[in-house]
Amino acid sequence: MALTLYERVCAGNRRPSPYCWRARLALAHKGLSPETRPVKFTEGALVAFSGQHKVPVLGDDDRVVSDSWEIACYLEDTYPEASSLFGGAGGRALARFINHWTDHGLQKALSPILVPYAHALAMPEDRDYYRQTREARWGQSLEHLAAKRAVYLAALDPVLEPLRQRLAETPFLCGEKPAYADYLAFAEFQWARSVCDQDILAPGEQAIRAWRHCMLDLFDGLARSVPAFETAA
Amino acid sequence: MALTLYERVCAGNRRPSPYCWRARLALAHKGLSPETRPVKFTEGALVAFSGQHKVPVLGDDDRVVSDSWEIACYLEDTYPEASSLFGGAGGRALARFINHWTDHGLQKALSPILVPYAHALAMPEDRDYYRQTREARWGQSLEHLAAKRAVYLAALDPVLEPLRQRLAETPFLCGEKPAYADYLAFAEFQWARSVCDQDILAPGEQAIRAWRHCMLDLFDGLARSVPAFETAA
Repeated sequence: MALTLYERVCAGNRRPSPYCWRARLALAHKGLSPETRPVKFTEGALVAFSGQHKVPVLGDDDRVVSDSWEIACYLEDTYPEASSLFGGAGGRALARFINHWTDHGLQKALSPILVPYAHALAMPEDRDYYRQTREARWGQSLEHLAAKRAVYLAALDPVLEPLRQRLAETPFLCGEKPAYADYLAFAEFQWARSVCDQDILAPGEQAIRAWRHCMLDLFDGLARSVPAFETAA
Repeated sequence: MALTLYERVCAGNRRPSPYCWRARLALAHKGLSPETRPVKFTEGALVAFSGQHKVPVLGDDDRVVSDSWEIACYLEDTYPEASSLFGGAGGRALARFINHWTDHGLQKALSPILVPYAHALAMPEDRDYYRQTREARWGQSLEHLAAKRAVYLAALDPVLEPLRQRLAETPFLCGEKPAYADYLAFAEFQWARSVCDQDILAPGEQAIRAWRHCMLDLFDGLARSVPAFETAA
């Protein structure tokens, strides 16, 4: 078994991509340690063998899987003897809903806050690409997004409410132990931790903070092992 | 086995409460047909035997369960031989997250649109209570909410995105067959159907419309059997 994960790399060998963190944590959940291959924003051709140009891409001997959700399903089906990522068919169906909530709710609310920081962290040769694609997506300059940080932080607050409510009940979104839905949501906070010098959570955000702390500790501190923005060289 | 469901009743014997529809559909999913007992907004004392004053309340012989989530868990654990509401432990944990998303995302976005209509449908003797509690919750008059209907409809659109994406993939939120997470989300649309003379979905909203149609057909048309606003006497 030779596992290879192609993932986004930024300046200082940082790995901020939330999509790639979904895959990294799903692999760790299954007890798997892939070799990782860095791919810059402008190096999509490196994964063209997967039939598309985005990361993450997982190679498992001669099998190739792209898209973080497809990777999670592949791991669940290919390594059924390891701890389940979904906890059954019902959990898989609803994890997919939470995937969409993460993409179109949580990440959509976080992006205008984080994208200006992420731009500064892209490889110098990637910054024009990053600026152009993100400004097109948001219909405004990165500087305009940055100037409205307080507005976007206020808009993030109600988006966090389902997570806040759920994590006040059990240590993890998935209950007493973490599973794929936790990795989906946490990967966004890992993105924030990687690129931004200011915490996106209010000081009183106890339940989400406690969960984030536990998530950083998982798998011998896998997510904690990469530098947070403020500790960067 | 004597099952009794205490549920909200409004003018014309209408039953718009989304919380009560969650319980009604969960019971139907388990093949159970409760006797129903109507409770007006100002009749909370009728369910004081449950230790609180809200509906739904389920009586099952000498057992009493309040709160729609507790009722779902009670039915799942007490009637395990019937079709599962959650599809396993993973599904139950994530259904709880979707419960919070429904309350704090979907319902929060729908409420300012529907509350002015729901007020008109409350029993005449309940209307002062309904107006006072809802105006306190929203910090503005029902007339102000109604005047901003277009604003709230526009704000609803992105909130629907996770549902829209999920239902473009499979017929139901829970996959090929409906289960509790479908009832959670659908109960909000059933509330809208009961109180409002205008559809809250845009004409092109195909996936959510197709799902809503299927949900109305379930259990011999249980949800369809109660009158929609426009067909009311």
